[in-house]
Amino acid sequence: MDIEDTLLMIPGPVKVAPRVLRAMSKPMMSHRSPEFGAIYEDCKTLLQEFFMTKNEVVIMSGSGTCAMDAAIGGLMDRDGKIVAATNGKFGERFTEIGDRYGSAIPVNFEWGMPFQPDSIEAAIEDGVKALAMVHNETSVGIINPAETVGKIARKHDLPFVVDGISSIGGNEFLTDAWGIDVAITGSQKCLAVPPGLAVVAVSERAEDRLVEGCGSYYADLRAHIKSARKKPAQTPYTPAVPLFYALQEALHMAKEEGFDVRRKRSQRLAASVRAAAGALGIEIFPVKGEFSEYSNTVTAMKTPSGISDDKLRGGMKKHGIVVSGGQERLKGKIFRIGSMGVCSEGDILRTIQTLEMVLAKEGVIGELGAGVEAACKVLDG
Amino acid sequence: MDIEDTLLMIPGPVKVAPRVLRAMSKPMMSHRSPEFGAIYEDCKTLLQEFFMTKNEVVIMSGSGTCAMDAAIGGLMDRDGKIVAATNGKFGERFTEIGDRYGSAIPVNFEWGMPFQPDSIEAAIEDGVKALAMVHNETSVGIINPAETVGKIARKHDLPFVVDGISSIGGNEFLTDAWGIDVAITGSQKCLAVPPGLAVVAVSERAEDRLVEGCGSYYADLRAHIKSARKKPAQTPYTPAVPLFYALQEALHMAKEEGFDVRRKRSQRLAASVRAAAGALGIEIFPVKGEFSEYSNTVTAMKTPSGISDDKLRGGMKKHGIVVSGGQERLKGKIFRIGSMGVCSEGDILRTIQTLEMVLAKEGVIGELGAGVEAACKVLDG
Repeated sequence: MDIEDTLLMIPGPVKVAPRVLRAMSKPMMSHRSPEFGAIYEDCKTLLQEFFMTKNEVVIMSGSGTCAMDAAIGGLMDRDGKIVAATNGKFGERFTEIGDRYGSAIPVNFEWGMPFQPDSIEAAIEDGVKALAMVHNETSVGIINPAETVGKIARKHDLPFVVDGISSIGGNEFLTDAWGIDVAITGSQKCLAVPPGLAVVAVSERAEDRLVEGCGSYYADLRAHIKSARKKPAQTPYTPAVPLFYALQEALHMAKEEGFDVRRKRSQRLAASVRAAAGALGIEIFPVKGEFSEYSNTVTAMKTPSGISDDKLRGGMKKHGIVVSGGQERLKGKIFRIGSMGVCSEGDILRTIQTLEMVLAKEGVIGELGAGVEAACKVLDG
Repeated sequence: MDIEDTLLMIPGPVKVAPRVLRAMSKPMMSHRSPEFGAIYEDCKTLLQEFFMTKNEVVIMSGSGTCAMDAAIGGLMDRDGKIVAATNGKFGERFTEIGDRYGSAIPVNFEWGMPFQPDSIEAAIEDGVKALAMVHNETSVGIINPAETVGKIARKHDLPFVVDGISSIGGNEFLTDAWGIDVAITGSQKCLAVPPGLAVVAVSERAEDRLVEGCGSYYADLRAHIKSARKKPAQTPYTPAVPLFYALQEALHMAKEEGFDVRRKRSQRLAASVRAAAGALGIEIFPVKGEFSEYSNTVTAMKTPSGISDDKLRGGMKKHGIVVSGGQERLKGKIFRIGSMGVCSEGDILRTIQTLEMVLAKEGVIGELGAGVEAACKVLDG
């Protein structure tokens, strides 16, 4: 595989624009300098707009999981509990983190099935410190009802923690309007930055409840907030400087396109993937209902009968396109195509074309072209 | 400040070679792919040689503090204690981390003063889970006696945790020969990679004592070891992919030079800085004794009377050279010059020359040239 001639269509890390890659090749600087502080502050301002929030924004050097760890570890004490609504792998991660510091009350739905908000509300009991959910469950390509669950959190006066890692910037995500107290994203998703940074927007309501000395030392939200408010803005420990360069460049690039224009592009691209799947007889995996929507950022499809996961994804990779398989219990059963960040119409069409080629080779479809045609209709519409 | 025309002489992040910066501009790849695994495994092999160890090596996406958090959080349980020998800021960090998860028994020496190994041994009591120290205390430019303290750890059957962040690759550091069970470095020091990765070498002895479910979820050493042993090698959460590209390139670059040749270069450069300081009447800050040595990687000097820290470092920055000040209680009292990684003789001479220029302007020294001359004698010797 020549990575410089490969199209990365997985739901993160995503393709990064050359100008963002080039931004990383600037020399290092002191992370305690005014120059670094200016980059941090510029990113914060743009990120507030990106998150649709007036809340404090902090940038952590770590993956999205680092920020999930910071949020739950910060809000829990060792006798505390969190309610974690789950319909995929990343929801389960909230449960694992809750159990690490206190205990989690998981509200489990089948992977890919919609939440039932009543069950989530019914799980709230004494000692619960936060309500947590994943907005866009990357593992199954479903959007969960953050606005609805947010109302439950508010009714019970619980901080509302939402993993928006593969969502913010690709799906509609209204941090303040939906009452999200801790909103999280990762650099390697809709921001189209390389992986390595996580962003957290924290409300005053949540900040007031962050507990001293519980949770991870490195992923300490209070310490990150305190440093971010210094003049110049800082991080508590040495940050991944080149990723800050990349984040700043990528935010400006997204702002030039328009955050909302980019979100609508993801929406259109995902719709075109679903249309192509329909035309090729491929089933969409997650179930759409009153409390769920198809993701704009990742489309999960059942692996068609007549072809193995290895042949499907291995075949596409031979032709220079990398798509994702299913995780854990969905291994071999689904495949996933990302449509976030700087993913283009051309990227989507090339991916569908290659998928058709591989399916035809294995005799899963007869003639070529139906998928691309269906996608084009959506993109052209 | 034009960062592309500035010489970064702080003790990390350090100057990064252009070929390493360029390596980061490669496109992203899936972190679950064999291609990523191959990079990880190549780095591991070279890092074992770099650490002088046969132990398992894991790479974490986070700062050196992330690895310190992982080590202490992994070895402690909530009733556990760690003994942390301290003579600077980073030693104190071990105490803070110990107190986060259980309790720390700090053995405090004045910042910059040598350890007294007897006091460290005397602090060991029932319930102690590990003995921790910083080898090269970046905040004060001192090398602490890891070999001696390692013998104490072994005698009391305690896992020995050593922060080698600004040390490994610049000072002599014999992970296996000194019985270091958990050795830590950060990418932005002697490896001359941008900040954002931490490397941990873990002995079997320490691994056997890692506790399930204590410490940070993100900085979980067991999870990192488990993933690193997969084929292909992986990380438990999404890694900072471009920093892995940089690390691989930088390791090959260091290997081409020779790890030992590079270490001796650091030694020579630091000696030349001390010689220059002597010639300019500047006092070295740390105290050298039976149980301490001057650092090869960072030279801490007292701010000369007759000039303020602002004038000294601000003046140098105006001339394009960034050096560090003192941290916390040493703010305004010392300044520090790094000499690790790809730092060259030319970099050191330019720094000393600029220091002289600034000192002369403020009337601290009369004629120019004595510092450079003294440095040249060492470099030429």
